[in-house]
Formats: sequence, C-alpha cells, structure tokens
Amino acid sequence: MPIVNIKVTREGSAPGRSAVTAEEKALLIKGVSQLLLDVLHKPLDSTFVVIDEVEMENWGWGGLPAEAFRAQRAAEKK
Amino acid sequence: MPIVNIKVTREGSAPGRSAVTAEEKALLIKGVSQLLLDVLHKPLDSTFVVIDEVEMENWGWGGLPAEAFRAQRAAEKK
Amino acid sequence: MPIVNIKVTREGSAPGRSAVTAEEKALLIKGVSQLLLDVLHKPLDSTFVVIDEVEMENWGWGGLPAEAFRAQRAAEKK
Amino acid sequence: MPIVNIKVTREGSAPGRSAVTAEEKALLIKGVSQLLLDVLHKPLDSTFVVIDEVEMENWGWGGLPAEAFRAQRAAEKK
Amino acid sequence: MPIVNIKVTREGSAPGRSAVTAEEKALLIKGVSQLLLDVLHKPLDSTFVVIDEVEMENWGWGGLPAEAFRAQRAAEKK
Amino acid sequence: MPIVNIKVTREGSAPGRSAVTAEEKALLIKGVSQLLLDVLHKPLDSTFVVIDEVEMENWGWGGLPAEAFRAQRAAEKK
Repeated sequence: MPIVNIKVTREGSAPGRSAVTAEEKALLIKGVSQLLLDVLHKPLDSTFVVIDEVEMENWGWGGLPAEAFRAQRAAEKK
Repeated sequence: MPIVNIKVTREGSAPGRSAVTAEEKALLIKGVSQLLLDVLHKPLDSTFVVIDEVEMENWGWGGLPAEAFRAQRAAEKK
Repeated sequence: MPIVNIKVTREGSAPGRSAVTAEEKALLIKGVSQLLLDVLHKPLDSTFVVIDEVEMENWGWGGLPAEAFRAQRAAEKK
Repeated sequence: MPIVNIKVTREGSAPGRSAVTAEEKALLIKGVSQLLLDVLHKPLDSTFVVIDEVEMENWGWGGLPAEAFRAQRAAEKK
Repeated sequence: MPIVNIKVTREGSAPGRSAVTAEEKALLIKGVSQLLLDVLHKPLDSTFVVIDEVEMENWGWGGLPAEAFRAQRAAEKK
Repeated sequence: MPIVNIKVTREGSAPGRSAVTAEEKALLIKGVSQLLLDVLHKPLDSTFVVIDEVEMENWGWGGLPAEAFRAQRAAEKK
C-alpha cells in the first residue's frame, strides 16, 4: 500500500515547454509503481502516486530561490 | 496538537461541479477536528487541517493516471 | 482516492498510557474514511490513512517544544 | 541533507497584498537554511526548502475554516 | 531538484523478513532517481529521496487498519 | 497559521553524538518560529513545527543511500 509523493519544480523539460507534460507525469506514475512492484512486490493497484508541481520561487536550495542558486552554480563552473 | 492533511483529486462530488466546494471543505475540517476531540481528547483549537486539491493528471493509481485507472476498472466490471 | 495523514504527538490519551492505542488508531481510520464517504462520496476502499506519531520533543508550538509550551499556557491561565 | 517544508495561507503580510511576495519567500529560504547551518552544521547547499501556499478555505483551525476561526477569536477578545 | 517521498508499511517482502532491507531501500533510491533523470532530465545529484516505514497499525485502507483490510479482502476472494 | 516540517537524517552534529539533541531541536523550533514572525508577522503561537529524524539508510541523494553518496563525494574531492 505504498504512497509516493514526487515534488518537482513547475518548469518544462525541454525548450518551449513551461511545465511537466501529461505524458511525462504518466511515465513517472508508471515507472515508480513498477519499481515498487519489482523491489517490494507491491501490487500496482495498491500504490498511490501524487505529483506536486512547485513554483520556482517557492523552491529553495543553497539558501537561495532555485533560479538564483542555479545561476550561482553556473557562474562557479565558468 | 494534531495536524491533518487531506489530499483529494480536484473534481466535483456531483454532476456540474468541477471542484470541492467551500461547504464540503468546511464539513471535512469540522468532522476531522471533532473526531480528534472524540477519540484522543484533542481540543478543537489545537488541531490544524490542510486540504490539498490535486489535479487529476497528477494522481496515479494502478500504475496509471487516475482517469485512465478508473476507465480500466469500469471496463473490467462490465 | 483520498490520502489522509494524521500527525499527533506520541502520548497517551489517559493517565497510565504513553501512546495512542491500536483501538484509538482504528477509530481514527474508520472515522475519517467515513467522513470522506459522507462528504465527498469517496468509496471506503479508495481512501488511504497514515498516522504519524511524533515524539514530544520533535513538536514545536509557540516557538517552544510542546511540553514547554503547554507548561507556559497552563501558567498563564492561573 | 535537510528538507524543509513551510506551509502558509495564501494571503498578504500587509494591506494591499494578496500573497506572500518573492522577497519574503527568499527571506524564508535564506533564514531557515542559515538556521540549519548554525544549529546542525548542515552546509547551505545540502538543504532543500519548499514553500506551499494554501488557499484560506483549505486551511482549518478550531474546527472551522481559517477565516471563520479568526473572526470567532476576534469576537471573543472584545 | 526533485524530492521523492515513499511511504510503505514496515514489513518484510518475503517470509522471515520483518522490514524492508537496506538493499531494497538502495534499489528504490536508485530506481526512482534514475526515473527522474530519464523522464525529466533531472541530474541524479539534485534528487532527494526519503523512505518512511509506517507501522501496520498506523496505516488504514477501506476504513480499517491495514491488516484487517487485507484479511477482509482475502475472505471476499474465497 | 504556518506549519513547518523539518526532515533531517538521524545523526549527531558532533563526534560522540548519534542523534539531534533536545537542545538543538528547541533551537530549530525557536529559530524557524521567529523567522515566520519576522518575515510574515505570524504570531508565535500560530506556528506548528514538526521535526522528522530519518534513518541514514532511508535517505537517498545522487541515486545512492546517503552514506554511500557522501563517501563518493569525499572521494571525488581528493
């Protein structure tokens, strides 16, 4: 009876996209449910998955909002 | 000092509704707070309730997005 | 397909008890599942409930660990 | 590797504002990440922060939706 | 920067085991992190995974504690 | 009415300690409650804090259990 919660930033995975697509969400749901079946023998229909999309400004890493942190990291690598 | 989190899909409970209504939310808040008072003697004003409404495509069950899972179940029952 | 999470402090509801009992947990599970059936017409077997018991020192209220906060409140009422 | 989740109601902190501002969110992210560095020596870049803004009608306290609870409290203090 | 939370009951996946093993946990962590890389191109080192093991009596399904629900289901299938 | 959840690995912050101490927890509770008062003007007694301590083997980063990930990082820095 697993419950899986996946939190990601609300952004596209490729240029021209501004959010996770329905197809990508379906792949996440399928993949993680299958993983629980493979590893722990949990039947597919006993697994719930909830995906939360979080606005970029609501996500922090490195003491900074996510976009500022990414910019800082990119600058460090130069 | 309980904290209750209720996650439901964002959909109406009757035809013509597309979301949980404010009245239904108030009933959930009242009911679960009363339950914690009745069972564990928690004072009403020490209970927090947060309701999350989750888009249908962000909810997975049976390895599928919720709508596809419901369609599959309905087909199986025929 | 609701998911309910109930967080309570790990303590007894009556003198001589140091934790929530299995009977109390069963009442919480039954009560909140029934509430979701009554208010939102969610079938019982589509509701998952998870109860988290949190150590007293891991719970904060009023800027203080829970026990210190309760002592402060009790002192204020005198 | 801490994960911090901060849930607040979606409302402004001053008249004329209807939501938490990006500046306030940045201050929350910075402050809580610094706190984990100060208290537990967690490096800034190992801390994730997620802020959830919750609609007023989805938040319950005292067995009531948040606005009704605040109105009740304000009336009691008169 | 995904955060994945996996909640499962504290029980073994095979006779003679009473809990999820460290190896099984490592497989869950590896599998779901890889899934986020494959589907959303999230670098492995930006994904956090937290596994919660929940006592059987703290998990509810079908309005019943998990063990009672399983027994009921098994009886129905006969 | 904020709710703050802080998840950290169950380990000591200094040699000879195997867990977060009660004093450190009290500092986290005090600090984050004060932060919400300073930034969003939330009264101290409307903020709940819950600290979750997670076993090292239940925490994943970089596709690995936390300890393996740390060892890998340390080796890379050499």
